[in-house]
Amino acid sequence: MHILIIGAAGMVGRKLTAALVKAGQVGGKDISGLTLADVIKPEPVAFSGAVETIAADLSAPAAAAELIASRPDMIFHLAAIVSGEAEADLDKGYRINLDGTRYLLEAVRQEGMRAPYFPKLVFTSSIAVFGAPFPEAIGDEFFSTPLTSYGTQKAICELLLNDYSRRGFVDGIGIRLPTVVIRPGRPNLAASGFFSNILREPLVGQEAVLPVSRDVRHWFASPRSAVGFLIHAAELDTEQLGWRRTLSAPGLSATVGEEIEALQRVAGEKAVRLIREVPDQTVIGIVAGWARNFDTRRALALGFRAETSFDEIIRIHIEDELGGKIGG
Amino acid sequence: MHILIIGAAGMVGRKLTAALVKAGQVGGKDISGLTLADVIKPEPVAFSGAVETIAADLSAPAAAAELIASRPDMIFHLAAIVSGEAEADLDKGYRINLDGTRYLLEAVRQEGMRAPYFPKLVFTSSIAVFGAPFPEAIGDEFFSTPLTSYGTQKAICELLLNDYSRRGFVDGIGIRLPTVVIRPGRPNLAASGFFSNILREPLVGQEAVLPVSRDVRHWFASPRSAVGFLIHAAELDTEQLGWRRTLSAPGLSATVGEEIEALQRVAGEKAVRLIREVPDQTVIGIVAGWARNFDTRRALALGFRAETSFDEIIRIHIEDELGGKIGG
Repeated sequence: MHILIIGAAGMVGRKLTAALVKAGQVGGKDISGLTLADVIKPEPVAFSGAVETIAADLSAPAAAAELIASRPDMIFHLAAIVSGEAEADLDKGYRINLDGTRYLLEAVRQEGMRAPYFPKLVFTSSIAVFGAPFPEAIGDEFFSTPLTSYGTQKAICELLLNDYSRRGFVDGIGIRLPTVVIRPGRPNLAASGFFSNILREPLVGQEAVLPVSRDVRHWFASPRSAVGFLIHAAELDTEQLGWRRTLSAPGLSATVGEEIEALQRVAGEKAVRLIREVPDQTVIGIVAGWARNFDTRRALALGFRAETSFDEIIRIHIEDELGGKIGG
Repeated sequence: MHILIIGAAGMVGRKLTAALVKAGQVGGKDISGLTLADVIKPEPVAFSGAVETIAADLSAPAAAAELIASRPDMIFHLAAIVSGEAEADLDKGYRINLDGTRYLLEAVRQEGMRAPYFPKLVFTSSIAVFGAPFPEAIGDEFFSTPLTSYGTQKAICELLLNDYSRRGFVDGIGIRLPTVVIRPGRPNLAASGFFSNILREPLVGQEAVLPVSRDVRHWFASPRSAVGFLIHAAELDTEQLGWRRTLSAPGLSATVGEEIEALQRVAGEKAVRLIREVPDQTVIGIVAGWARNFDTRRALALGFRAETSFDEIIRIHIEDELGGKIGG
């Protein structure tokens, strides 16, 4: 099985690559080759099979056709520019997040017109397809009314994925990822960054800023779960989905206060004291429109699993990123 | 006020044009000019103000910019290729129904970048954005899972309309029209045609074929109501919509049997005897995936109104198309 990962240089892309390399197979089929593509050339990985790394800009009309020419059996499409950038630069957001995905779907269809070709395509969507006001928990049949251009682009891609699957061009499945915490690496400027920062930094003895109040509730999963969702999607028999090809992944609904309580239990009061509360009205405003809780019974029935406590999310970070030890 | 109607040569477009000409105003503002555009040049209309008729193919990237160059205050966008054609020709459907609408939104945005410009845009969407399985009545927050490429394209346009409105480029509102009955004119090949045929033909003494069983339930409004929805949308203060800019219009949920009973009440048993039941498995299959009933409390609260009985729908046809007389 030849696997193409588009967006392989990102945080989830790198972890997905590592997980596939480690497993050596997907759904019982050996992985013979990996093609890793991103707008910057991904780092090569040590793997027994063939590995190719490609710098490709999916918003260029011909890029997708070049990636698909080798007829990968399985495609993970993780490439996107993030919410803040898609909001700041409308043209760029539509070009990469919408046109890029459409070019990819078209490239698969065109390849199939040359000779039968029906790859599995796992697409990462986002809970940003939903916009307030929300029900208590967002169910599997709630409508998409995004409040960002990024969310709009993801919602449109979900519709295209459904249609191209229904028409028999591709075997698509989309997964709406929760906010992934704890993101490894340095703090970034994403509005959601603080959810990770207030755990990651204190765990290594650094200060972190909390810009919202402790009663803010949001929807989370660990990087390990995010990769798990994508691999489970890759292995899933999509017949079970009918033509409703995108699922909200399971996750943990928790408040910032609950995050901090978990930090205290795992790393003690010393870690918690490193969190400085500095209210930021801009961040408070943005976060107010975000989803707080989901009822993901469809994904749960299909075997998707996420963490059920923040203690677990923190322990996964300590295991996967800190070599099992709390620093500071 | 200068009004542009795109798709002015179609059935609803012509009736909308006639209604605007008759009223001479929208929301209390006099209509100074009408631009009627369609892929074939619309018929000119007698009007006290300026009237321009234009043949324009909205799927050509430059066409929308040319239509928008005169900076109409109000745009009705009704242009689309129908469901059957969008299913038969994937490229054409996406080019006209998706790209055409996107070009239009972009043309408005680009015009606004040259000099402030913020027109009202009334977009006709469709109940085809919904796909079975359905709840008993489809509510205002039910998700879009279209089972046709046409429905997919309409659902995507709804998302674009929301985003371009939220970003402040256009004052958009979308209306999901019920199936419009009784369509005037000759029987056509649309799968939904029989809903009109079995009333329209017997009312003038002609035979009509019923390809489905009498217990098939569907969602209807008259051509007069369809035009009424669009004008009400044009006059509505969109502040009331927030960023959820598309509404399912109210309509009548009725079975084919109820249609026929109404025909009997209005035109007698002689008319009913002109309906020949010839089951068609293809049509039966298509119709099985269609919406049967809606709960449109949002549109009702905003003042949209439709017929409440098939007797009323038939009487409207007799008044508007048959000069008040039943023939045959």
